[in-house]
Amino acid sequence: MAQRHLDPTDPTSGTSPALSALLGHARGGDPAAEALPGYLRAQATEFLRALRAHRETGSNGGPPVRARPAGADDGAAGSADAALALRRAARRISGTLHTFRPLLDADWSENMRPELAWLSGTLAREHAYAARLQRLVTALNRLSGAAAFPAQPRGTAQAAADGTAKGSLTVGAAKAGALLDRQLTLARTRAHSAALQALGSSRFHAVADSVAVLASEVPLAPAAATADLGPLARAAHERLSDAVAALPLVTAGSPYNAEALVHGLSPDPAPHPQDAPWHQVRLLLRLYRYAVEVLHGPESTVDVRLLTAGEALNRHRDASEAAAAAASAARTPRIAPATAYALGVLHADQRHEVEAARFAFQQCWQKEAVSTS
Amino acid sequence: MAQRHLDPTDPTSGTSPALSALLGHARGGDPAAEALPGYLRAQATEFLRALRAHRETGSNGGPPVRARPAGADDGAAGSADAALALRRAARRISGTLHTFRPLLDADWSENMRPELAWLSGTLAREHAYAARLQRLVTALNRLSGAAAFPAQPRGTAQAAADGTAKGSLTVGAAKAGALLDRQLTLARTRAHSAALQALGSSRFHAVADSVAVLASEVPLAPAAATADLGPLARAAHERLSDAVAALPLVTAGSPYNAEALVHGLSPDPAPHPQDAPWHQVRLLLRLYRYAVEVLHGPESTVDVRLLTAGEALNRHRDASEAAAAAASAARTPRIAPATAYALGVLHADQRHEVEAARFAFQQCWQKEAVSTS
Repeated sequence: MAQRHLDPTDPTSGTSPALSALLGHARGGDPAAEALPGYLRAQATEFLRALRAHRETGSNGGPPVRARPAGADDGAAGSADAALALRRAARRISGTLHTFRPLLDADWSENMRPELAWLSGTLAREHAYAARLQRLVTALNRLSGAAAFPAQPRGTAQAAADGTAKGSLTVGAAKAGALLDRQLTLARTRAHSAALQALGSSRFHAVADSVAVLASEVPLAPAAATADLGPLARAAHERLSDAVAALPLVTAGSPYNAEALVHGLSPDPAPHPQDAPWHQVRLLLRLYRYAVEVLHGPESTVDVRLLTAGEALNRHRDASEAAAAAASAARTPRIAPATAYALGVLHADQRHEVEAARFAFQQCWQKEAVSTS
Repeated sequence: MAQRHLDPTDPTSGTSPALSALLGHARGGDPAAEALPGYLRAQATEFLRALRAHRETGSNGGPPVRARPAGADDGAAGSADAALALRRAARRISGTLHTFRPLLDADWSENMRPELAWLSGTLAREHAYAARLQRLVTALNRLSGAAAFPAQPRGTAQAAADGTAKGSLTVGAAKAGALLDRQLTLARTRAHSAALQALGSSRFHAVADSVAVLASEVPLAPAAATADLGPLARAAHERLSDAVAALPLVTAGSPYNAEALVHGLSPDPAPHPQDAPWHQVRLLLRLYRYAVEVLHGPESTVDVRLLTAGEALNRHRDASEAAAAAASAARTPRIAPATAYALGVLHADQRHEVEAARFAFQQCWQKEAVSTS
């Protein structure tokens, strides 16, 4: 399928020719009523395949990848891939249940969504901690100029021990890296255990059973037989457009507006409230992307700018959480001033990444609006 | 005089019509040979007037403004204004001696320049420390969200004492403010004493005598009678263009390039070496601006974009030095981790100001290049 240009900035674009073309004709003339159960069945099958792969790669309750002997790495990587595929399918099923709710059996869909959200949330955590640590260690390396310690989290503690020969701030960077390594690896190990526990729970087995049913038979509402998917996908698009319209895009489009670091030293330990609307747009963008997949099949080419916008919002979320992790590590009792200083620099650096990601999103979104208007 | 458009990005622009128009006709047809001594005499007179004002406003060797009783403020402000005017004239005389060296008595000019540089450097320091503290305290307020403590440095220490009721990071911000207040106020007091000592020294009296001679009779070289000022002003312009051409303007023009904070945690306590070429351009831009003043009189309208570029470079210098002051304060022994953390955030914030100033310079310079090419 050729790439198409949407106009997601225009809330009235539900009637634009480009969007109508995209939303109006699902998968080469398949009846709309068939596209929805077809997509759900495919994602359910994908879910079950990933689950089988996860079990076969021997996820055995041991500690996370980096603390294992080298020989176990293949299995661990396979297990991580399987967990990713499981989350990917769970998110798509959950999102589709949400967007096309009126076409599905209400009770069944209302029961299933929170269970899928619980599952993908639980599975995502281990990966998130690992990625956060990697992001922070990479940033510390960049901020220290020459590679003061290896980019692999593994080497951080060792480098901290070696760091005494260097200037005090580099020792600070190495110690900050070692502290983050300890804290985030601990969090990751706990998330790993929680994920394994979840996968062995009766709650999970109930979800898996529901997905197994879904793979063969989708519980549709009576309305589904004659309904058009277009209006529901357009509604998802409108929710996205409305949320984007509420973002401070004028500020975001002005480089170096210093907005993301405002409250950088505020006493509130919670993540910046200014980030929440951006996180919300990230979720709505994903829901809309899944809706497009339902209409055109999961293999359809997504508008590259929609993907770019999504990547900017992922980067926004990752940098926001990394900045919070640095701030949280700085509240560890009895750390050295040099460590705290390095964590302060790191926090500010990641908040500027937040600002940079907003700028990137604004640029990409503006381009989209201009090129299709 | 109408505003004119230069093309300072083009090293060959010495022959461009706009620049020729600007450089070719000094002050409504005054002979070039008269413009140079006229400018120097005027600046020398300005210097002597400022010196008289400085003495009359009773600069008495006391501590800087903010520690004085309220009644002394008028005199102190007048003294600060007079010191500013003194520096302003000294810089212009020194810069003019440099740019138009071949037209002036060589021995006299070679002897006078370092003395003027010493004087304006000595006088500048007190103001620089005060401005740096103000910049850092303003930034700490911004980073703390709501005005956690007053913008006046005076209140910082008190706010630090009050800060215990707030979260630990806000205490950190207040303590960081109090620490910077102590360190920079001490530096400022020392600079104030050094300036007063300098103004009472025989070295200064020799400079003042030379300037007094200059106010009535400028020691010209024999070549001056027939020389054109244009080529020497163009040479100043070319030195500026060459230095700008060597700046990493492509990187600077890409927002959020994260270049200024590279080495933010490096062990080197010296100011970032990457800043030096920008500081150099700042000085060359100033020299060129003075050369334009010589040709068209000190009241001539300077190209607004040249001023904007200069302001961006001033901001670059100020942020660079403020970032270094925050890093230096973080090396104070036995500070609390929360203080060090706040100083780390502050350092990174100011390094991003450095990056923002480079971006602003690039934007302004590009605009100039485009609009005149």
